[in-house]
Amino acid sequence: MALGARVWVVPGGRIPFGGTGPEPEYTSFDQLCVLNTGDDEADLRLDFYYEDTEPVGPYRLVVGARRIQHVRVNDLIDPEAVRLDRPYGCVLRSPVPVVVQFLRQDTRLPGALALAATMAYPVD
Amino acid sequence: MALGARVWVVPGGRIPFGGTGPEPEYTSFDQLCVLNTGDDEADLRLDFYYEDTEPVGPYRLVVGARRIQHVRVNDLIDPEAVRLDRPYGCVLRSPVPVVVQFLRQDTRLPGALALAATMAYPVD
Amino acid sequence: MALGARVWVVPGGRIPFGGTGPEPEYTSFDQLCVLNTGDDEADLRLDFYYEDTEPVGPYRLVVGARRIQHVRVNDLIDPEAVRLDRPYGCVLRSPVPVVVQFLRQDTRLPGALALAATMAYPVD
Amino acid sequence: MALGARVWVVPGGRIPFGGTGPEPEYTSFDQLCVLNTGDDEADLRLDFYYEDTEPVGPYRLVVGARRIQHVRVNDLIDPEAVRLDRPYGCVLRSPVPVVVQFLRQDTRLPGALALAATMAYPVD
Repeated sequence: MALGARVWVVPGGRIPFGGTGPEPEYTSFDQLCVLNTGDDEADLRLDFYYEDTEPVGPYRLVVGARRIQHVRVNDLIDPEAVRLDRPYGCVLRSPVPVVVQFLRQDTRLPGALALAATMAYPVD
Repeated sequence: MALGARVWVVPGGRIPFGGTGPEPEYTSFDQLCVLNTGDDEADLRLDFYYEDTEPVGPYRLVVGARRIQHVRVNDLIDPEAVRLDRPYGCVLRSPVPVVVQFLRQDTRLPGALALAATMAYPVD
Repeated sequence: MALGARVWVVPGGRIPFGGTGPEPEYTSFDQLCVLNTGDDEADLRLDFYYEDTEPVGPYRLVVGARRIQHVRVNDLIDPEAVRLDRPYGCVLRSPVPVVVQFLRQDTRLPGALALAATMAYPVD
Repeated sequence: MALGARVWVVPGGRIPFGGTGPEPEYTSFDQLCVLNTGDDEADLRLDFYYEDTEPVGPYRLVVGARRIQHVRVNDLIDPEAVRLDRPYGCVLRSPVPVVVQFLRQDTRLPGALALAATMAYPVD
């Protein structure tokens, strides 16, 4: 049973620039968390939108059948790295239904730790 | 392909009053993040609702075709500035489908950093 | 134009017990933020659900036409105060469509500040 | 009146490893908050999905009629404990409609406190 939607949208991305503490545990990051409950592999296409230039993509993200993938946007480098501190939006498209959550960890400030989470917006 | 909805609602706005650390990086803010995946410019109208007075607006926010805009509510000044520390709600209306996310950064307390995020509420 | 839904649900309430810093600015709280975009007053009924006893209510919350109300759950006292540190869920019912957001501020730990926000869950 | 949906999805789970401060108040945790407004007990089945192995379950979670349950994922041990610091997704299935919210508390960093909350994703 594949649960969810095939298109998901995150408008509010921006990887915090800078971080404090041991890596990778305390690195600042934006993260996309994908759950594929179905019996077919989900081969996702991601496109990134910016304030001042055409969208960049596709990035690929493969989530196996009955598996999750939590990918840090910091780690996406093909076709190009997503720059730190640059506002972006992201659209994820999957051939099969999946569910997508967005998470930010911000450790810019020494001794502080901030998290923010929201479900991505599903398009039918 | 324009993804999303034409009307979005954020009931829980309130720009934190005060902040610690270098500006604009560590300024306290409320932010509205809009993604326009379509091929037509999105000329949004924003209206702000308060506890004790009639709504104020329209504010304008233009998001180009295939572009994002992340706007700090602190920076909205026309027709009038949104006052710090004043509870508000916001309705965003777009002639084309968009997706809207809300983000708060709170740096009032020295040495601390708080984030909160949620997708805005879409109206069909 | 009244936007939103008539019934909203928040399953994950719990007012943090204790706080640090000047009140009421730095008090720990759970908050319900309601936006009524319509031309009729919204006279909401709130019911609180617990782990080990029957629901308590109704609490009343009035949101004027074209107005917001941000109410701290800490301040709800009739028919009885919602106890600190006690897990609860809340159902809000309105005779007219409204939109509801949940916010928590946690200042239990000296020198730290945590926020969490989510839209409430709308029922048609 | 039973409000909500019968299937809920959380893709972005990961119990933070380590914590600072008195337990259980300041323990790091992921939490699932369930509200059952109906007149029938909700006997939920939870399944956990991982990056590199088949799903594990079912876990059981019983929520009485007109009751809530806030369960720390840290406390789920049957059929096996959910390991700290291991990314997971969770699907909750209920025979009756319920509403589910996800909450994370992260106290890994001494003197810091982070919260993140989002409604789970409902499947019809």
